[in-house]
Amino acid sequence: MIKHALNNVTREGDFAQWYQTVITEADLAEESGVRGCMVIRPWGYGIWERMQRLLDDQIRATGHENCYFPLFIPLSYIEKEAEHAEGFAKEMAIVTHHRLISDGKGGLMPDPEAKLEEPLIVRPTSEMVIGAAFSRWVQSWRDLPVLINQWANVVRWEMRTRMFLRTTEFLWQEGHTAHASETEAREETLRMLQVYRSFAEDCVALPVIAGEKPENERFAGAVSTFSIEAMMQDGKALQAGTSHYLGSNFAHAQNIRFQNSAGELEFAHTTSWGVSTRMIGGLIMTHGDDDGLRVPPRVAPWQIVIVPMLRDVPEDEAIVAYCRTLQAELAKLSAFGEPVRALLDLKGAKAATKRWGWVKKGAPIVVEVGGRDVAGGNASVLCRHQLYREDGKLDSRVMPRADFVLEAAAMLESIQQSLYLEARERLETNIRRDVTDFAELEAFFADDVKFPGWLEVNWSKPSGAGLDAVTERLKALKLTFRNVPIDAAAPSGPCIFTGAPAVERILVARAY
Amino acid sequence: MIKHALNNVTREGDFAQWYQTVITEADLAEESGVRGCMVIRPWGYGIWERMQRLLDDQIRATGHENCYFPLFIPLSYIEKEAEHAEGFAKEMAIVTHHRLISDGKGGLMPDPEAKLEEPLIVRPTSEMVIGAAFSRWVQSWRDLPVLINQWANVVRWEMRTRMFLRTTEFLWQEGHTAHASETEAREETLRMLQVYRSFAEDCVALPVIAGEKPENERFAGAVSTFSIEAMMQDGKALQAGTSHYLGSNFAHAQNIRFQNSAGELEFAHTTSWGVSTRMIGGLIMTHGDDDGLRVPPRVAPWQIVIVPMLRDVPEDEAIVAYCRTLQAELAKLSAFGEPVRALLDLKGAKAATKRWGWVKKGAPIVVEVGGRDVAGGNASVLCRHQLYREDGKLDSRVMPRADFVLEAAAMLESIQQSLYLEARERLETNIRRDVTDFAELEAFFADDVKFPGWLEVNWSKPSGAGLDAVTERLKALKLTFRNVPIDAAAPSGPCIFTGAPAVERILVARAY
Repeated sequence: MIKHALNNVTREGDFAQWYQTVITEADLAEESGVRGCMVIRPWGYGIWERMQRLLDDQIRATGHENCYFPLFIPLSYIEKEAEHAEGFAKEMAIVTHHRLISDGKGGLMPDPEAKLEEPLIVRPTSEMVIGAAFSRWVQSWRDLPVLINQWANVVRWEMRTRMFLRTTEFLWQEGHTAHASETEAREETLRMLQVYRSFAEDCVALPVIAGEKPENERFAGAVSTFSIEAMMQDGKALQAGTSHYLGSNFAHAQNIRFQNSAGELEFAHTTSWGVSTRMIGGLIMTHGDDDGLRVPPRVAPWQIVIVPMLRDVPEDEAIVAYCRTLQAELAKLSAFGEPVRALLDLKGAKAATKRWGWVKKGAPIVVEVGGRDVAGGNASVLCRHQLYREDGKLDSRVMPRADFVLEAAAMLESIQQSLYLEARERLETNIRRDVTDFAELEAFFADDVKFPGWLEVNWSKPSGAGLDAVTERLKALKLTFRNVPIDAAAPSGPCIFTGAPAVERILVARAY
Repeated sequence: MIKHALNNVTREGDFAQWYQTVITEADLAEESGVRGCMVIRPWGYGIWERMQRLLDDQIRATGHENCYFPLFIPLSYIEKEAEHAEGFAKEMAIVTHHRLISDGKGGLMPDPEAKLEEPLIVRPTSEMVIGAAFSRWVQSWRDLPVLINQWANVVRWEMRTRMFLRTTEFLWQEGHTAHASETEAREETLRMLQVYRSFAEDCVALPVIAGEKPENERFAGAVSTFSIEAMMQDGKALQAGTSHYLGSNFAHAQNIRFQNSAGELEFAHTTSWGVSTRMIGGLIMTHGDDDGLRVPPRVAPWQIVIVPMLRDVPEDEAIVAYCRTLQAELAKLSAFGEPVRALLDLKGAKAATKRWGWVKKGAPIVVEVGGRDVAGGNASVLCRHQLYREDGKLDSRVMPRADFVLEAAAMLESIQQSLYLEARERLETNIRRDVTDFAELEAFFADDVKFPGWLEVNWSKPSGAGLDAVTERLKALKLTFRNVPIDAAAPSGPCIFTGAPAVERILVARAY
């Protein structure tokens, strides 16, 4: 039996504990001591930087420009869009004072003399402050479309937090656009949904289902909300990105108007869309295994880590020199259209400790080099995505160094593909589409079923109170609607909830 | 006489108004409607992204890793380091509530039921929250040094704000390190000061003087503070980056201790260092002219902008095709070790309007292409750093396209160099080092002198009340100490302030 790097903590045993253990053992993040906020450590932040770089390229390629808007939103701005305020007002950090003074007991307290006339909200999202800028920028149809994006931190006061998935402060990008017509704005909403799908699938190796949320799951103030949904290894869904068509709701609230070519004043149509550090949570729960994390090469801060096996003897020098040459050879290669990122780990720890450290972190390829490798012109190569041979032994392959250098870029591309296909198969084989009866749905999601996956079912798209009633029935089973897949087949037959003729197919799942 | 792009607003006429006009006309930033906070627009943010990329490379090359720490700092953390608290407590944004409720009058207010037990400070700097992490990370001498950096937003409640120079919220990087010895920590402090100097000079073309601040100008809680100081075109100094040796002050406050190789517990020595969006203010006031901004090519979001001269006629198509070919040829070039960034501006405005727009923004090279250029295989090339010929006419040079493509990379490198040398000469010729008498100092900085520059004078390095007395005398003349230049000559003779024997040479100047 294989003794895994996380010891007894397995996905099968306790998925939630396993998730937390991977975060700790892979040095991704840790509790900060500040309520609901985490410290993102170098390996976790490095993955985020890689995600930023790749997604940013796609956001620019679709014509958007980056800007930066204030962290603080005056209270009066929040009040302007009623639904938006209703949706967000419950969970915000509120700045009320601007100075500390001595409390007379050796400590400090907010100075009552320095109370703000108008409280400031720490942005939970920036529609209200960016909309105010749009209303200044947009005068004529010639000013449209406005296509901007911001990389920023946002704060939502969450009662129960979980690292990367739900934290008080998190990092994200938020795109905001204004258009002359509904058609253009809807096209933009779907364009960015596809950008998110392609980013998730091609860069993070995260297969997703793109679709539209039911009305009661829309972003506060939106006309339509779309999402990409990924399947975690415990069968739950994770919403990994959203794109909203906001209609003219925010344009009305913030007076974003333009003179059209006929000289008439019209309200603009706006969109917004975001992807956050939550994506890292999705990466962990999709690609992690009982030895820790496996990072897809495209988003790995280091794709190849070279670990010299040193013994504090004079021969060490030749090993280090050999490793440096290997590192330089690898750095000249290109994979995925970028230079290969190869690290030589010279930290002062035992080679075995370092090897297992990088296994837990999920570096795609770990290369060990000892005296015997140097003598033979070889390298011992470990691919993180398939760590063991069939007999349960570590699959460390001795290869001529020159062969490894020749093959390394292709190996990285094949690892990326392999992680994607493994996740894609999990997603595809665990969505059942043949359930037509509510009792069957209940059985599918029964508490003692270990990996229930998702259901895609017929529904009649009820609205208002009708939808609430259906949602309550699902909630009792700890279930939620995910989205109506854009690529779903046409519905046929009755709605599984109401019995009325179905008009769409919708995904039902447990979710994070 | 030349009619400049900013009309009557000149540096000579009103420097402060000119600065503000450049920011507006170059689309760098604007007032946000949120007190003391600005909106950084795409061109301004693009410059910041370029600065980030280049400085980040140097921060990584010196062994530091990026992390992310919480935005909020619990009040009790701030109280731990007395001097630090004293220095920062006066100007912080304080979060006291976490929920809004209806105020019964149609508006919203902080929910009295949702008052935080412990107020949270929006970080003005992160020593206290990063130090808490260091105390968890550092146990043994083997864990040292810890070398980390963070790109983040910070908030300081400023009473009088000025875009880029002093805003309530600003963007920066803050490096934080912990070391086993004072020697190592001091080396790190000076290493990063040199990184800042080289970044400012080589990337931003901003010549600076690196030196140590007098004790009353130190960062709150620091043992030594070093700065780089740049000279603006009105003769004032701008502190463009700081590096602090913090001794064991923060290690004591936050219990950052390690077991040394002899098994004894010791306090670590820490450093911190930062560069902010203020650098953009320095760039404007160093390189701007009466036609707007001039951006050094290394930090220009677009280095070459191609403006096709279109007239809404069928011939336009051939012009656009020609421009696309030119853009593709330029994109294959490399300058400063990176691909050249060339934009084809197809926005729907008149060519002359677009040309002047890019002149005001300061794109290093603007290329205009009309039908005649296409017919002749040419391009009309304008270099932003030297816009006019001696006769006052715009120096637009018609060049064979192939020649321009051959020369473009070298032109960019020469523009960078030229901007640097121009600023270097201003700095060097405007520091007087021969003033030995206080009356002479007063005359040098007299109110009616248009460009006083700086003085480097002998001083006896008084401390405590003695230093305060000298500082007060300077303050009455609106003057400040900048720093004691690392490269200054040895002092000789009496201190200009106290008459006691001088021990150092120090810079005196008006400052931002």
